[in-house]
Amino acid sequence: MALVVQKYGGTSVADIEKIENVARRVIDIKEAGNEVVVVVSAMAGETDRLVNLAHSISEKPDPREYDALVSTGEQVTVSLLSMTLNKMGYKAKSFSGHQIKIVTDQSHTKARILSVNTEMITDELEKGTIAVVAGFQGIDMENNITTLGRGGSDTTAVALAAALQAEICEIYTDVDGVYTTDPSLCPKAKKLKKISYDEMLEMTSAGAKVLHPRSVELAKKYEVPVHVRSSFNKDEGTLVTKEDEEMEKVVVSGVTYDRDQAKVTVIHVPDKPGIAARLFTPLSDQNIVVDMIIQNASIENYTDMTFTVPRKDIDDVRKILKIAAKDMEAERVEFDENISKISIVGVGMKSHAGVASRMFAALANEGINIMMISTSEIKISCVIEAKYTELAVMALHDAFGLEKE
Amino acid sequence: MALVVQKYGGTSVADIEKIENVARRVIDIKEAGNEVVVVVSAMAGETDRLVNLAHSISEKPDPREYDALVSTGEQVTVSLLSMTLNKMGYKAKSFSGHQIKIVTDQSHTKARILSVNTEMITDELEKGTIAVVAGFQGIDMENNITTLGRGGSDTTAVALAAALQAEICEIYTDVDGVYTTDPSLCPKAKKLKKISYDEMLEMTSAGAKVLHPRSVELAKKYEVPVHVRSSFNKDEGTLVTKEDEEMEKVVVSGVTYDRDQAKVTVIHVPDKPGIAARLFTPLSDQNIVVDMIIQNASIENYTDMTFTVPRKDIDDVRKILKIAAKDMEAERVEFDENISKISIVGVGMKSHAGVASRMFAALANEGINIMMISTSEIKISCVIEAKYTELAVMALHDAFGLEKE
Repeated sequence: MALVVQKYGGTSVADIEKIENVARRVIDIKEAGNEVVVVVSAMAGETDRLVNLAHSISEKPDPREYDALVSTGEQVTVSLLSMTLNKMGYKAKSFSGHQIKIVTDQSHTKARILSVNTEMITDELEKGTIAVVAGFQGIDMENNITTLGRGGSDTTAVALAAALQAEICEIYTDVDGVYTTDPSLCPKAKKLKKISYDEMLEMTSAGAKVLHPRSVELAKKYEVPVHVRSSFNKDEGTLVTKEDEEMEKVVVSGVTYDRDQAKVTVIHVPDKPGIAARLFTPLSDQNIVVDMIIQNASIENYTDMTFTVPRKDIDDVRKILKIAAKDMEAERVEFDENISKISIVGVGMKSHAGVASRMFAALANEGINIMMISTSEIKISCVIEAKYTELAVMALHDAFGLEKE
Repeated sequence: MALVVQKYGGTSVADIEKIENVARRVIDIKEAGNEVVVVVSAMAGETDRLVNLAHSISEKPDPREYDALVSTGEQVTVSLLSMTLNKMGYKAKSFSGHQIKIVTDQSHTKARILSVNTEMITDELEKGTIAVVAGFQGIDMENNITTLGRGGSDTTAVALAAALQAEICEIYTDVDGVYTTDPSLCPKAKKLKKISYDEMLEMTSAGAKVLHPRSVELAKKYEVPVHVRSSFNKDEGTLVTKEDEEMEKVVVSGVTYDRDQAKVTVIHVPDKPGIAARLFTPLSDQNIVVDMIIQNASIENYTDMTFTVPRKDIDDVRKILKIAAKDMEAERVEFDENISKISIVGVGMKSHAGVASRMFAALANEGINIMMISTSEIKISCVIEAKYTELAVMALHDAFGLEKE
């Protein structure tokens, strides 16, 4: 008998009929002789409805109250799913974050899980009950309700799977796995059978939106095997798991892109110790996430600094840099919102030479100019003109033979 | 500095604008130098929405899950009201039933409060915070979410007022107090300034719907003064309080009616010990509330039994009595759905003679036939033909001079 943790997202529980579909899937796993813990999100649209209520009161609603408000979305779904399972003749019980004591820190709207008390769930599983757990929410040490932020329900599922030492954590979503690239952009994209935690992390941080990086980090830390699959069919999805030899044979596993960045260049800065801090501290103080950073080699004690920021933050960045650039005695600041970041990801890079040059050649062959380059152990990213995004994805998908099984 | 508990019903918090009105009223009381605890219901329509979701799954949804589901309605309101108070510059915190540990028994959907832990609220009040508490909900000893059933938020407010030894419990509703009778039926109806707990209890059980009997019972037990008033104006409402000499001078305080009853007569029953139990046990087993019961004097060892039941249950009653009547060897059973119960209520009855005969005379003067009579210490009820309801209310209102201050 295995313990299976399943997670269903908002589109999978969007209405009563879909909840009944989920119940049938849960029952299938239960009938196959497993213990089942199900984590669900709020019904699609419900969180938006609650957020709109909050924002009709205030642009910046009190975060403690915001969390108490939006956490009701998941509580509704767990009750409805448990009722459905009960009606279908199966013992099921709903649990909210405070009932099973998913204890988090006090960072409302983006709390981190500190501990999970599994006793209550284990007791129920032993009685043959299906445990239905509200994703996305927890409580802090003082019993205030907290929420985990984006991808929070995935994180709840992985945390429970880790704490309960589940055999597998199945993440049901509206796509049927992780693809070599975005199938809507590149029809040749293929579903991956397996991917390593690190590759998944690089893929998600590079723009693939299947899993939130936090849930992948957690899965990696506790070595929880995560199976990403569709709730609308029975196909096998993609297994996110520990790196193995087989994976290393593949040079590149996927191509991702991110069109939501903007490029900023601070030109002709006097190259003195501490300039990077003076530039980036005011940005991080405003919670602006700087992604790629490139500092050119200094010429006559002057340098240029180029970096990317989320495009949505560009107005704030302009304001902050107006002051910072003057302070640093930079010549001027240039902004380019018309960019895209293309990345190739693969654990095989570690043991294969010449991957970067193959990437650059493939882009050059299509006449695509590279504006910035950054590399990690298993990822290479290039910033290019936005209009070449699709072309670049296709070219790289071909260049690394990703259409082949 | 006084401690005031206020309760606002669903129509008073039906939308963001109404919630802002409530916030302003709360602030007025706070600014007058009081500590304030606010209890709120779900936004009007929200509980119905949730109940409909549950019933689209099952006619009889699992009660534990039903409670977990519907309790989210109040959690939404407390968050929104707290956000609003925060935005207006006041410290406010929302609390759900599990956070302040309103512990109830395990009777899902109609739980009774066993204890209230006031520590968390007292701490917050001392810091100058306005405590906003979800009505209608609690938790049982095992941390399952429970709800208190109809009138539950009133009960929460009174229980908190009792536990916190509040100076007053203000119940804001969509009517502006307790009237001598229903103003929509009798234009001469007058608002009462004061009414005793017992009178209020008899009024509510006799059909007046301002307060639920359970909250009145609780208020009586702990001698909590309850001020029933409108959330849409600033008029004084009606104070529900301990009986005093002044009240006793008034013979009758109010006239109520109940059109939702049906009359059942079991005819020619052999009069043996235990027949009442054989008749009423199967009804109470099905949770059917029998109201007035009359057993005629036995003639030649046969008797007739007449009683009233809620009209909505009449089909179930027919089925049950078909079996019970045969079992009791009764001749037949007659049903009359075309009735109304008219009651007069007043603590003054205890010390005034001839009240009943004045009532009967007033009805007789209008040619209204009395089918059943039942009396308590401070109430006399008559069952009459339904079509005379309005006429009877007017006649009794006049007969006892209720239009006078």
